[in-house]
Amino acid sequence: MKLTDIHSPKQLKGCGEMELQALAQEMRQRIIDTVQQNGGHLASNLGVVELTIALHRVFDCPEDKLLFDVGHQCYAHKLLTGRQQAFSSLRQTDGLCGFPSRLESEYDPFADGHASTAISAAVGLCRARDMQGQTHRVVAVVGDGAMTGGMCYEALNDVGQRKTPLIIILNDNEMSIDKNVGALSQHLTHMRVSRGWLGTKRVISEGLVHIPVVGKGLYRLFRRVKNSVRNVFVRDRFFSSLGIRYFGPIDGHDIMEMERVFRQVQNMQEPVVVHVVTKKGKGNADAEQMPERYHGVTPSGKKAAASFGCAAGEYVTALAEKNEKICVVTAAMTDSTGFRPFRLKYPEQLYDVGIAEEHAVTLAAGLAAGGMRPVVAIYETFMQRGFDQMLMDVCLQKLPVLFLMDRAGLGADDGPTHHGVFALPMLQSMPGLKVWAPRCVQEMKDMLDAAFMEEGPVTILYPRSEGETETAYEGFVPGKWETVKEGADGAIITFSSMVQTAVEAAAIAQQEGLSLSVINASCISPLDEETLSRLSVRPLYTLEESQLIGGFGSRVAQLCTQRHWPQPRLQLGIPDEFIPFGDRTVLLERLGLDAGGVVRKIMEDQKN
Amino acid sequence: MKLTDIHSPKQLKGCGEMELQALAQEMRQRIIDTVQQNGGHLASNLGVVELTIALHRVFDCPEDKLLFDVGHQCYAHKLLTGRQQAFSSLRQTDGLCGFPSRLESEYDPFADGHASTAISAAVGLCRARDMQGQTHRVVAVVGDGAMTGGMCYEALNDVGQRKTPLIIILNDNEMSIDKNVGALSQHLTHMRVSRGWLGTKRVISEGLVHIPVVGKGLYRLFRRVKNSVRNVFVRDRFFSSLGIRYFGPIDGHDIMEMERVFRQVQNMQEPVVVHVVTKKGKGNADAEQMPERYHGVTPSGKKAAASFGCAAGEYVTALAEKNEKICVVTAAMTDSTGFRPFRLKYPEQLYDVGIAEEHAVTLAAGLAAGGMRPVVAIYETFMQRGFDQMLMDVCLQKLPVLFLMDRAGLGADDGPTHHGVFALPMLQSMPGLKVWAPRCVQEMKDMLDAAFMEEGPVTILYPRSEGETETAYEGFVPGKWETVKEGADGAIITFSSMVQTAVEAAAIAQQEGLSLSVINASCISPLDEETLSRLSVRPLYTLEESQLIGGFGSRVAQLCTQRHWPQPRLQLGIPDEFIPFGDRTVLLERLGLDAGGVVRKIMEDQKN
Repeated sequence: MKLTDIHSPKQLKGCGEMELQALAQEMRQRIIDTVQQNGGHLASNLGVVELTIALHRVFDCPEDKLLFDVGHQCYAHKLLTGRQQAFSSLRQTDGLCGFPSRLESEYDPFADGHASTAISAAVGLCRARDMQGQTHRVVAVVGDGAMTGGMCYEALNDVGQRKTPLIIILNDNEMSIDKNVGALSQHLTHMRVSRGWLGTKRVISEGLVHIPVVGKGLYRLFRRVKNSVRNVFVRDRFFSSLGIRYFGPIDGHDIMEMERVFRQVQNMQEPVVVHVVTKKGKGNADAEQMPERYHGVTPSGKKAAASFGCAAGEYVTALAEKNEKICVVTAAMTDSTGFRPFRLKYPEQLYDVGIAEEHAVTLAAGLAAGGMRPVVAIYETFMQRGFDQMLMDVCLQKLPVLFLMDRAGLGADDGPTHHGVFALPMLQSMPGLKVWAPRCVQEMKDMLDAAFMEEGPVTILYPRSEGETETAYEGFVPGKWETVKEGADGAIITFSSMVQTAVEAAAIAQQEGLSLSVINASCISPLDEETLSRLSVRPLYTLEESQLIGGFGSRVAQLCTQRHWPQPRLQLGIPDEFIPFGDRTVLLERLGLDAGGVVRKIMEDQKN
Repeated sequence: MKLTDIHSPKQLKGCGEMELQALAQEMRQRIIDTVQQNGGHLASNLGVVELTIALHRVFDCPEDKLLFDVGHQCYAHKLLTGRQQAFSSLRQTDGLCGFPSRLESEYDPFADGHASTAISAAVGLCRARDMQGQTHRVVAVVGDGAMTGGMCYEALNDVGQRKTPLIIILNDNEMSIDKNVGALSQHLTHMRVSRGWLGTKRVISEGLVHIPVVGKGLYRLFRRVKNSVRNVFVRDRFFSSLGIRYFGPIDGHDIMEMERVFRQVQNMQEPVVVHVVTKKGKGNADAEQMPERYHGVTPSGKKAAASFGCAAGEYVTALAEKNEKICVVTAAMTDSTGFRPFRLKYPEQLYDVGIAEEHAVTLAAGLAAGGMRPVVAIYETFMQRGFDQMLMDVCLQKLPVLFLMDRAGLGADDGPTHHGVFALPMLQSMPGLKVWAPRCVQEMKDMLDAAFMEEGPVTILYPRSEGETETAYEGFVPGKWETVKEGADGAIITFSSMVQTAVEAAAIAQQEGLSLSVINASCISPLDEETLSRLSVRPLYTLEESQLIGGFGSRVAQLCTQRHWPQPRLQLGIPDEFIPFGDRTVLLERLGLDAGGVVRKIMEDQKN
């Protein structure tokens, strides 16, 4: 059966083994082609092709509910559930979402983009099912990476006590030990190694298959023997101590073996974990060798812009030469946040805690309380997981932790779960927390220098890419705003990525005879009251690539009220809605947050 | 040695066993007396008296660092570390804090008030120590309740891999199975039961001690035999799978036994867990019998005011009779949030997940995605742990989850970690989330009725106590504000607990010839734009018992800017700082948020 003939996953049930293997190859190629074109997650999706086929052979979706944790491993699932035609629009503006989406398909029972949520959501779906007397199955596919998140443990602890029937597929990516994070990962490796059959089996079976005709027969015989000898009902210390039955490890690229085990567990009246071992990047030599490079892929031909994160990582590494108190905490994204150089140079001072933002923040608080100068480098959107700890463990104790929040602003192709637009309302309300945002790499470096001189906590927010900076940068002074351009008719107050937009808007306005100042409000919190006071005699326009409600503009307006200064005329920013995925330029245009849109609104205001 | 003679915990090292037991009794009495006078946490503190003594006998504080998770079990520690004289001021305005506090004493290396943070902080202190070549010990005392929080798992997963030397005391409160939450708790019970010696030993030894002279000798002999026979170096499945060595269980009321084990582990170059079994409320018959009633104690003589939470719990229970889709998720506080009646009536529809707010929220999202109408009842301050999940799992998918956030506003005696004043900036910025706050119990009931009719998520915030409501309440209409009092000279727009304050302020102002409207902005988000538009011709004053930055007042001002309406004249609320513990009335007075303070500021404004 060809992939293009598949409109429903139920069609898989009639296929033979060879047919399925051919289908897997076709799907794999489709995923590679599409990701090379559109960008996206490659290695993780290549790893779960056979697993996804086996799941759809055993379970009846959409009646049965299939959840993928950190949903970016859902591409094979999308291909098999009526979305293969639309698949070329993956992650394109108005196209298919790169994550599961309830709005997109009835085959996606729960959307997720942040990690470690699937077991919790699945437990909810199970209990809703049980309360309503329904009988369908619920399956949560969770990677070993997501298992480092505390939410998974909270959910296991709950489900293991209540014995809610639920099937958890633990997708163990079998990466080498030094790349895995956490003791549980080491434990899983031990489970594999101590049952040493798997690697051997794969080598033998792959070798056998390549001997034509006879090879395939031998291979089948070999597998039958292996399967009858080995009992997958083994005892695992971790899951059994949490009251959950464990099966595995099994080969996540052997559709028939997985099918056999899934059929064994599908109707058990208790929670079970099936430990499936897959290879990230399977079927693509480069991605198999370096799965971390193929986690998120930039479309081929499109050169990735120079990154703020890389510059930050390199600069902090340089600063650590002179300041031995500097140490770094990351959450499963050391490379993505640019801290690979630091890890290589100071492996004993870099703590990658896994997808564990809560622990990351309080660990840093502890490091600071012990006299160190910790840096926490995490994407802005994922830091939402650590707000309580920032507030209660860091700010309340005035500890000098430096938070570097990468990917601030619209995160483009990954969509609403990855836009960094929700942090400011919370960050601004944290007493004693300084919040800065640079408009160029040099300003970020100056901010890093300044941050290590501060006695309390500092957050520096920056977007993914440097962007263009046409205007000369004049240096950073903590607490002070920078006048990028002077103009008599009004002032745009903005920061970070939007300074360049404001400069462009001011240039357009100039042509219309309107002379606007552009202010780089690099110190978001506390505000530069002196400059604001001076500016407030002119019409003010605040501009931010961030949620308007409770954001920077609202803070500026609030201070104006408190001081009885004239109010800013306009607050421009992200409206009160979730912004979809798509090209960042297109998204900003649609929101009227490109230079043209900004000018239009200001001109309109000036007419009133 | 008398308690009053102890100025440093080092003095304990010279004491004999009998002396220590007498001291424990004295400390216990002091704690009971003080808590009966001042309120506070009783059962948990009575449980750790011997444990705290044993810790201070073996470790050298303040050089060695001693952390208490959910710090409210730190009373014995405070008594032994130079604070016994000040202890009578516990939780009083300007007195001793009810939690550890770095500002208060060098013996408190890390402050905590929210649960499950101590291991993370301790790991940070350990690594700071190691990086600086120091050699002191770090000990984290963690209750089995706190162990339900995912942060603990995240920290164990980290420390088990890196093998950071750290001593974790797992304080297992030995409550009965049905009161414990989570599979891990069941596992700990299994560890105790399977080694069945403990209960037996305690019964025998307590019996023996009561036989004078001979009894004590027999008891010592008995213990020597027991100790030599039993090997505490046992293997625990849970901790060993996370790479952490486990010792226990040991009797948490036997100072000498604990001391022996602590000495064994104190210099191990890896993380260890010592499982100590204590009895909550030990030494107080009532508290031993019903420790949940003695968790937080109200000062005797002071009648607890009728509670919003209790009314909410009862009303939701009543609504569930007619609506079988209603189910409830709590986080280790079913009783405190008022949902005991629901648990008793619908035990299968109430999910107490432990101190696991992240899981609680996403579990509710899953329940809603499965067609149920889940209610999540959690204190406002603890919901900070679930903001990311509220935003990404609930609001993004527009799921009809109802959040009941109890203890909104100043939380009084528990201090900055328990004030419910930080949620609004974040809640208001969550697209599609309705945020309501009732001014009286009847309005809350009306809100509950209305919330179950909504198609998307709703949050209802309410304070601990009902307070007084002199003014007739006229009914709740979703999206509409209530005019509590009409006045021509200006309007106070406020909500929840502050409506009564505004009514009182308006009465005082009336005497001064100033006629103020009082508006009950029960719908905080979205705002009632129609009413605000109508009001905005008069001087407006917003008033909230919540953080000003990014709060309700800032949202009102923002809308006025967007609509080009006149700005509110004043935004009154909690300033940009952490508010200490103390009597709520005193705190509000100090902040100028009592009726008198509000009038003063408004009169001053009217003069301008």
